[in-house]
Amino acid sequence: MPILYHFPLAPESRFVRLILGEYKSDLDLRICQPWERNDTLLKLNPAGELPVLDDASNGVYCGARVISEWVEEVRDDAFLLQGTAEERAEIRRLISWFDTKFTHEVGAPLFSERVTKRFVKGQSVSSDIIRAAVANAHIHLGYVNWLLSRHDWLAGDRLTLADLNAAAHLSVLDYFGDVAWDKYGDLKSWYMKMKSRPSFRPLLADRLVGMPPSKDYAELDF
Amino acid sequence: MPILYHFPLAPESRFVRLILGEYKSDLDLRICQPWERNDTLLKLNPAGELPVLDDASNGVYCGARVISEWVEEVRDDAFLLQGTAEERAEIRRLISWFDTKFTHEVGAPLFSERVTKRFVKGQSVSSDIIRAAVANAHIHLGYVNWLLSRHDWLAGDRLTLADLNAAAHLSVLDYFGDVAWDKYGDLKSWYMKMKSRPSFRPLLADRLVGMPPSKDYAELDF
Repeated sequence: MPILYHFPLAPESRFVRLILGEYKSDLDLRICQPWERNDTLLKLNPAGELPVLDDASNGVYCGARVISEWVEEVRDDAFLLQGTAEERAEIRRLISWFDTKFTHEVGAPLFSERVTKRFVKGQSVSSDIIRAAVANAHIHLGYVNWLLSRHDWLAGDRLTLADLNAAAHLSVLDYFGDVAWDKYGDLKSWYMKMKSRPSFRPLLADRLVGMPPSKDYAELDF
Repeated sequence: MPILYHFPLAPESRFVRLILGEYKSDLDLRICQPWERNDTLLKLNPAGELPVLDDASNGVYCGARVISEWVEEVRDDAFLLQGTAEERAEIRRLISWFDTKFTHEVGAPLFSERVTKRFVKGQSVSSDIIRAAVANAHIHLGYVNWLLSRHDWLAGDRLTLADLNAAAHLSVLDYFGDVAWDKYGDLKSWYMKMKSRPSFRPLLADRLVGMPPSKDYAELDF
């Protein structure tokens, strides 16, 4: 069975779990702490980063972007990166949006303050950084809401990798109750659809020790 | 003619110039300062990030990763992302290495200290940050040197997107004289080959006002 090395609350790891969940792939999930040196992981991925997919039969694939492109290339039933070259460019643009801009302005600072600093001794949490990141989030949420007011899914009229990646990123914010869903009607409807997918269920069951999720995190109707 | 919005010393912009240079595409190059708001750019790319390719006939493509995948999909003579799914995964792994790990640990802090802070008032340069980034660079250069001791090109036995992206990133360090080439024999031989390619020539002619390149920046034999 393929092994996925991941961290439950890391968006890149969640993105891959969602993709493989859509394809109903059986997975042996192994949790790694991103802030700890892990020699098993370093042997598989010299970058030391998550997620890593060890696909027993074919090889080792490092990083969400690499894994997502590889899965879409090798599966006969691939359906998450289809369409014309222009449509695929739009899907990849939205993946990059979350992987770079959103991560830089929102996801990474919140993860560092809310998660990493709890597990690394001697670091105090900055409420200024949290406030700034949550304020930045509004711009991103507004943009995604606007996209979703124009079509049913993020990149057009069907579910793609872009939806799974955006949902992976936003679900981490949602775990901490950092999304004011009621301000963004189309975004909220879309996220309800995403949460209802069988691929999403395992993510809704994730619990970080000592850090319970926000009240509505696992609710399909919120 | 397609228009490329770029910044001469940004590695993502250089990566795209190298790709299009390999295909001998005529380009209308427009320079944007990454630290200034630019309404033309924002209309094309709501992320406000470089590079952006406005390909008159087909559409607008935002970001080096999107542009590189799109070019490889639409060109009949594409040759930079070929091979089996496993070989393509290795090419993308090395692109991600530079785009995330290298950028985070080396490229972005150096760019911020050496370039952005010169053009944004009231910011003082931190020699501690520069020292730390240059120290981090050694680990990356050693790893790339090791890869190049095993095969002629970064991802195997032929030139791929991975070589162009790595060279784009390293060329920015080289502009500032931050690479101790003589410590890395195989890396140096590879970089000499890269510099000798016609696609590289325009990059060697780049000059930032008030910030001349290191002595050997444009030398093919260094």
